Amino acid sequence: MTVARELEGLLGPDAVIDGADGRAGTYLSDATEWRAIRGRADAIALPATAPDAAGVLRWCYEHDVPLVPRGGGSGFAGGAVPLDGGVVLSTERLVGPIRIDPGQWRALVPAGTVTAHLHRRARENGLFFGPDPGASEQSLLGGNVATNAGGPHTFKYGVTGHWVTGLQAAVAPGELIRLGGPVRKDVAGYDLLSLLVGSEGTLGVITSAWLRLIPAPEAALPVVGFYPDLSSGCRAVANVMGGGLIPATLEFLDEATLRTSIGALIGALPELAGEKDTACFLVIGEADGRQDEAEALRSELVEAMGDGALGVHAPTARHEVAALWRWRGGVSMAVAAQRGGKLSEDIVVPVDQLEAALRAVQEIGARHDLPTCCWGHAGDGNLHATFMLDRSERAEVERAEAASHELFDLAVRLGGSVSGEHGIGLVKRGALERQWEPAALRLHEQVKRMFDPKGLLNPGKKLAR
Amino acid sequence: MTVARELEGLLGPDAVIDGADGRAGTYLSDATEWRAIRGRADAIALPATAPDAAGVLRWCYEHDVPLVPRGGGSGFAGGAVPLDGGVVLSTERLVGPIRIDPGQWRALVPAGTVTAHLHRRARENGLFFGPDPGASEQSLLGGNVATNAGGPHTFKYGVTGHWVTGLQAAVAPGELIRLGGPVRKDVAGYDLLSLLVGSEGTLGVITSAWLRLIPAPEAALPVVGFYPDLSSGCRAVANVMGGGLIPATLEFLDEATLRTSIGALIGALPELAGEKDTACFLVIGEADGRQDEAEALRSELVEAMGDGALGVHAPTARHEVAALWRWRGGVSMAVAAQRGGKLSEDIVVPVDQLEAALRAVQEIGARHDLPTCCWGHAGDGNLHATFMLDRSERAEVERAEAASHELFDLAVRLGGSVSGEHGIGLVKRGALERQWEPAALRLHEQVKRMFDPKGLLNPGKKLAR
Repeated sequence: MTVARELEGLLGPDAVIDGADGRAGTYLSDATEWRAIRGRADAIALPATAPDAAGVLRWCYEHDVPLVPRGGGSGFAGGAVPLDGGVVLSTERLVGPIRIDPGQWRALVPAGTVTAHLHRRARENGLFFGPDPGASEQSLLGGNVATNAGGPHTFKYGVTGHWVTGLQAAVAPGELIRLGGPVRKDVAGYDLLSLLVGSEGTLGVITSAWLRLIPAPEAALPVVGFYPDLSSGCRAVANVMGGGLIPATLEFLDEATLRTSIGALIGALPELAGEKDTACFLVIGEADGRQDEAEALRSELVEAMGDGALGVHAPTARHEVAALWRWRGGVSMAVAAQRGGKLSEDIVVPVDQLEAALRAVQEIGARHDLPTCCWGHAGDGNLHATFMLDRSERAEVERAEAASHELFDLAVRLGGSVSGEHGIGLVKRGALERQWEPAALRLHEQVKRMFDPKGLLNPGKKLAR
Repeated sequence: MTVARELEGLLGPDAVIDGADGRAGTYLSDATEWRAIRGRADAIALPATAPDAAGVLRWCYEHDVPLVPRGGGSGFAGGAVPLDGGVVLSTERLVGPIRIDPGQWRALVPAGTVTAHLHRRARENGLFFGPDPGASEQSLLGGNVATNAGGPHTFKYGVTGHWVTGLQAAVAPGELIRLGGPVRKDVAGYDLLSLLVGSEGTLGVITSAWLRLIPAPEAALPVVGFYPDLSSGCRAVANVMGGGLIPATLEFLDEATLRTSIGALIGALPELAGEKDTACFLVIGEADGRQDEAEALRSELVEAMGDGALGVHAPTARHEVAALWRWRGGVSMAVAAQRGGKLSEDIVVPVDQLEAALRAVQEIGARHDLPTCCWGHAGDGNLHATFMLDRSERAEVERAEAASHELFDLAVRLGGSVSGEHGIGLVKRGALERQWEPAALRLHEQVKRMFDPKGLLNPGKKLAR
């Protein structure tokens, strides 16, 4: 009997797709761009309940079949790609009402909830969920938790893990466990919850999460600064932090990134046209809070970001603000569109090393003869260091891959991390070895064996070496 | 050769105290009050460097000698008490300059740093470290991390773990590892850092921590509300949260707690005298931020807390504010002074269960014939549920111990946790079994074995069963 047929016995025929079925195709890759990673699965399981998800895991464990948990498939590290058969467990049907308690600032959210839907439901209840990774209409909450997703608002509000107070997860050999809950403090057991956060489906399958929310800021007012060069742009970032201002976001785009997309920005916000041809660096801050607080902070941001700037703009109309963030959300695609593909690594450095890191990335790209650009989360020292490439040119892809290893070394040399957002997945396999001491690597590997003694959960992913 | 003599060979004679030496006495107990827990050690090791701390751990691992890490000894769970010989590793000499980077909002802090000293150094640099557990002049940063300490400001600012971006720790069999660093995002490896946070010295010895700080709030303005009964007090807490206000703290004291200490409060703040005899519940909120923001929020707190109140006061003079928090910090001692001792458990419940929990605690105390009171962190649903007792009365201590088990069951029944601040240590050993499923308990125990295969690190502490 095929894997698919056996799973049908567990979940019913409508909840399983045979790996050979054309419909399985969308579950075999993710958003990893620089090499078309496409896997192979025996079956796609679409459980609609947490016990069914645990049942799939149990079946896989009993039959020694690999299990690849999958959220919205928007990851950039190949983390949800089945490498060599087995079962893809899609969490997309783990949905149902989001249970929001407005007065207690919390929500119980099924893993299959679309990120943007959670943001909307929180807002409808006067609340706010901070993490805002890209692809918010595609990514699912369970995947956000499993990758500890970030986004622009992480600067003030922290990554996904900071918002998770409880998890339900299916763990080997096929049981549901609950860690934490609708509580704001809990030091009773070892922090297994944080182990599952960011574990990229290699330790278990997250089925729902209790989230801490906060009252929604009344206003969010962006400030956009244009700079003539890298140094003045980085100085603006330092001015904001050194001045003790706390914007919700503190983003940057370097010159090459700007060139790919500034036209679209000016199209939406013609008032910014003045700096179109001279700007070589862009910084976006956002002042949020109550209306009066946000306005006061916006003024301070305009001042702090003004030193050395070509111009500083604070769009106020709602449609302008929306257009700015829509544009920012599209930068990644605009970059990819330049040459059809990109290799983009989400390295992190201490924020005072931002300028050094940006210069070094340019140097690495030049040495490997690759068009290079960087943008990302300046306040978090989190760069999307990117080589633009033609994916059909094998030599280019290989040069980009070699260059990416230098990016990892750079991040570690500057005291940072090989990944701030995307995780290790498949494509950064082994990069942790550059960052951690052998004793820590051993513990990393022991954690894996402890949760997954048979090595069946998302095999080949998040490997330390 | 004695253990002490052998350690002297490693650390030098001034860094070791023999267990039989009178000076060893202060290292054999902690602040656990309800039963005088006093342990026994062969030697006290006082390493002055992280490599020396790792050396002590290595020596213990080579010679199968238990090792009990110890911070300031201000814990309430017997977590730093050596049960049956071995080495107490005091982190008090792991000191030295706190490396603060004001412009990057971060600090590298040796484990032996006194909490209050860190707060002061952050302030001097225009920065703020949120966690403010009691005994700030006694507790050490390493101990705060090892217990994931909280405090009143946790409501807005989160527990200690939220502030830790990097750790250096000595782990078995005697190596230093670094996890994270001066970075604000890192998803490269499994979150081993969070496993060490709150591990109560059972997984390793924390030697230093990288902390994320924030620009210091300009003002912190308390609001004190007096209520005629439990219900109206809890309604005030709900009004604040339901109104979307975000105070830095949201504390409460119940009637019995108030009776032990309201005199001292009125003494310091005579303007509050009006409610002295009628108040049965106290709520303290604190509005912080920039001066104008804090003032605006204070007004809103006064209004939200006013409904059903006997009176709401907002002391403004700096000495009044200081007196209020000094008084709040002394509540625990005032309660203990009533009958010479107390058993106080730091259970957590979902915040909408606060009133139910407070009523149930009273009922448990009455059934066991114990004078009972509660105070704590209302906004976090974190109660210091307390039975006041005469420690020389064995029967009373036994009744209190039995009652404490009912507290744990209560917390779990209401969807909460057996510990929000103090940890499991020795005195809550086994309480986790009430809270977690067997599969999670197994993982808890596997984590311990993974970090400490010989079971030498703080043996007998933080046991799940």
